Amino acid sequence: MLTRVRSAVASLMGGMMAGGSNGDHPDGPDLPLKFPYSRPDFLGLSPDEVECSADHIARPILILKESRRLPWSTGYAEVINAGKSTLNEDQARCEVLVVKRRPSGSPMSNRIPTARRRSSLPNGEGLNLQDNPDSSEELTFHYWALFDGHAGSGAAVVASRLLHHHIALHLQEVLEILCTPNLVPPTCLDEEPINHLLTVTSHRGLTRAASLRGAAGAPGSPNTATPRFFTEKKVSHESLVIGAIENAFKDMDVQIEREKASYNVSGGCTALAVVFLKGKLYVGNAGDSRAIIIRAGEIIPMSAEFTPESERQRLQFLAYMQPQLLGNEFTHLEFPRRVQRKEVGKRMLYRDFTMSGWAYKTIEDNDLKFPLIYGEGKKARVLATIGVTRGLGDHNLKVHDSNIYIKPFLSCCPEVGSTCSFIMLLLSLSMCGFVYDALNSSNVPITPNVQQNLVMV
Amino acid sequence: MLTRVRSAVASLMGGMMAGGSNGDHPDGPDLPLKFPYSRPDFLGLSPDEVECSADHIARPILILKESRRLPWSTGYAEVINAGKSTLNEDQARCEVLVVKRRPSGSPMSNRIPTARRRSSLPNGEGLNLQDNPDSSEELTFHYWALFDGHAGSGAAVVASRLLHHHIALHLQEVLEILCTPNLVPPTCLDEEPINHLLTVTSHRGLTRAASLRGAAGAPGSPNTATPRFFTEKKVSHESLVIGAIENAFKDMDVQIEREKASYNVSGGCTALAVVFLKGKLYVGNAGDSRAIIIRAGEIIPMSAEFTPESERQRLQFLAYMQPQLLGNEFTHLEFPRRVQRKEVGKRMLYRDFTMSGWAYKTIEDNDLKFPLIYGEGKKARVLATIGVTRGLGDHNLKVHDSNIYIKPFLSCCPEVGSTCSFIMLLLSLSMCGFVYDALNSSNVPITPNVQQNLVMV
Repeated sequence: MLTRVRSAVASLMGGMMAGGSNGDHPDGPDLPLKFPYSRPDFLGLSPDEVECSADHIARPILILKESRRLPWSTGYAEVINAGKSTLNEDQARCEVLVVKRRPSGSPMSNRIPTARRRSSLPNGEGLNLQDNPDSSEELTFHYWALFDGHAGSGAAVVASRLLHHHIALHLQEVLEILCTPNLVPPTCLDEEPINHLLTVTSHRGLTRAASLRGAAGAPGSPNTATPRFFTEKKVSHESLVIGAIENAFKDMDVQIEREKASYNVSGGCTALAVVFLKGKLYVGNAGDSRAIIIRAGEIIPMSAEFTPESERQRLQFLAYMQPQLLGNEFTHLEFPRRVQRKEVGKRMLYRDFTMSGWAYKTIEDNDLKFPLIYGEGKKARVLATIGVTRGLGDHNLKVHDSNIYIKPFLSCCPEVGSTCSFIMLLLSLSMCGFVYDALNSSNVPITPNVQQNLVMV
Repeated sequence: MLTRVRSAVASLMGGMMAGGSNGDHPDGPDLPLKFPYSRPDFLGLSPDEVECSADHIARPILILKESRRLPWSTGYAEVINAGKSTLNEDQARCEVLVVKRRPSGSPMSNRIPTARRRSSLPNGEGLNLQDNPDSSEELTFHYWALFDGHAGSGAAVVASRLLHHHIALHLQEVLEILCTPNLVPPTCLDEEPINHLLTVTSHRGLTRAASLRGAAGAPGSPNTATPRFFTEKKVSHESLVIGAIENAFKDMDVQIEREKASYNVSGGCTALAVVFLKGKLYVGNAGDSRAIIIRAGEIIPMSAEFTPESERQRLQFLAYMQPQLLGNEFTHLEFPRRVQRKEVGKRMLYRDFTMSGWAYKTIEDNDLKFPLIYGEGKKARVLATIGVTRGLGDHNLKVHDSNIYIKPFLSCCPEVGSTCSFIMLLLSLSMCGFVYDALNSSNVPITPNVQQNLVMV
């Protein structure tokens, strides 16, 4: 149902880009690129084909060449979002990685890459896992990721090149534990075992009332000097993988910020990463891309979108606690529309960070400031600038013609879910129409002005 | 299946109360009580019966007398939680209230009570609604609420007496709107109508790229002087009711704090309030009590519990942003158990506010502080003190033998859900066993050390 369309129509951008980010790297334009701009390696495009892919008139749909195969027969299709940016600012990545034990005695380094790629992807050879079963010394994981870029292609290019290495690094830290199926992750590495049973038994007689007075070892409790432990939380292998993915996103964002001192890394991007490890699929999402599972005709969302509307209360709470982030130009309160000066003293609908409902308040001068969250649906914006509230990059992004930074409101932390199901689609924000078409096995024309990027497993 | 058990066994508290809050009002003991201690009015207990209800040996189950009826044939049962506090610190309330239009020209006052009770509850007469149908001038709502008290009975008593009046006050503010079924709540009261259609049409041509540069009227955008509006959010009647309940909880908490200057209002309480208004049931919950609906044998939770575990990330985020709230004695990081000095320099499992998974970090001196969130399940505590993270009161609660206040971490804001289903149970934290018994229509003995409070509709 996916067709590979090649177009030789010359780029005729016309006035379409007039207002948009145009991919010419407004951040640090005098610095070199960290990585050259390209489409995903696994598409195997020639420079000429890359140029054609950015044709805003023909909008060719790019899919895999038949000679190239991704693991699990993964499918992929993309098309440029006409009229938005000169280049397609989105990126995708598919890898099979092997994490090996760190050489003993080596210091904790952040060297990248630590993980050796098993196969010579993207040409797809050497993927036969059965020829090379896992030893207890190494861990193989599959990785698919989408990066929906904005305001430049730099962050998405860097993240597509490096995020999986950060994940591999964090998995390497817990490699020995993950490779030992029945081992409960030790609370403290290299510690002597503690007889938990004895400790628990000796405290069983405590009433809830007595324990309310202060847990053992709590400040002010009588036994601060010799802490005792009621229980010790047991942590699962799955929690370690989730923690590894979470911290990898954070490290990726820190690295992008660091690289900007030496390189031109423009814009920002969402990140939606899927990791398959030891029979489980983990979906880490920071942004408004979507991962869905299709099972028995049912569509199961595997990620939640992070937008000004879905994260309104987190953002309002942050602004309420740190009002200096609003630069005296914005208010953390939400109103159904912009307040006008003539309305001061009247009663208007509002929402604070504590509210999911609405109420009326008397309008004051301070309410004339622009709302932190403004607009509805796809037009909702944070600080009148950005429509997605999690992702990587954007460190230099400011409110237009001001010194107010957006980044403090953007979280790079993904929400990570896991499942044992394997049939999955990753898609960027505007793909729903196309996915439903695909599900119906019909080949209706793609609606215009829709950006598409998907990986099908 | 519920039996009314009366016991004449004298109170034999023994050493059970040694460590617990004992209901003798540690806050402001020299001040008078705002309201006298009692059991819910609708139980119609004599002073002698109130005394018997606190019998920690017999633990009588109190239900409604046959001569007393609550609206909708509501059922109710309670039993004291043996060994916890001298008096039952929980409270309950059931009311039918009529909200009337504020006399025209009257100032916005916070006078309580504004709402007149339709019936002379708790004696249950005068409840026949059909004899007195709603006029467009007034709004009738049903109200059931549970307050699970701790560290004294004062806050629960005050909240059970006043929360419904705060809800009535906030509903009164939107009375005219709620009484006009097809009226979309106006954004600004007394404003001239705006031709939204025209405004929307004139902006339809804007691309997403252009709109990204800055919404109309945003700081720095060219047209700040004459704000224009893309759209105006439409707010539902239901949102106004939810907003009224949310703000009523906040006002109730502010009032408790204010009353403590003149009265002895001890302890704190959770609040679970159900409002039935114009065919919809609203459930507002701040705490760890539970509301459930039983429909066709299926149990549907209508509230989520707010505990140190369910609110860990909110609490850690707050402590991370305002570390002075931790008084240099606590750390916002979570560890599976207390860190010991000999473990400094080793790698230990931890979770930060951004994480749902776990990872290892190298232990530093700062990690030796007591964790903000500590313990598991029912033993989980905030600041080693409290096991519930939302509720009313607790303004003076401090960490034992310190000047660290707990209140900044406790939210008085409820989560409000709504439904059109009417068969509901409200129950306090430890009631599950009893509820399942009730569902099975068997009358097995109540397990000891379980506190029970429920309203059945």
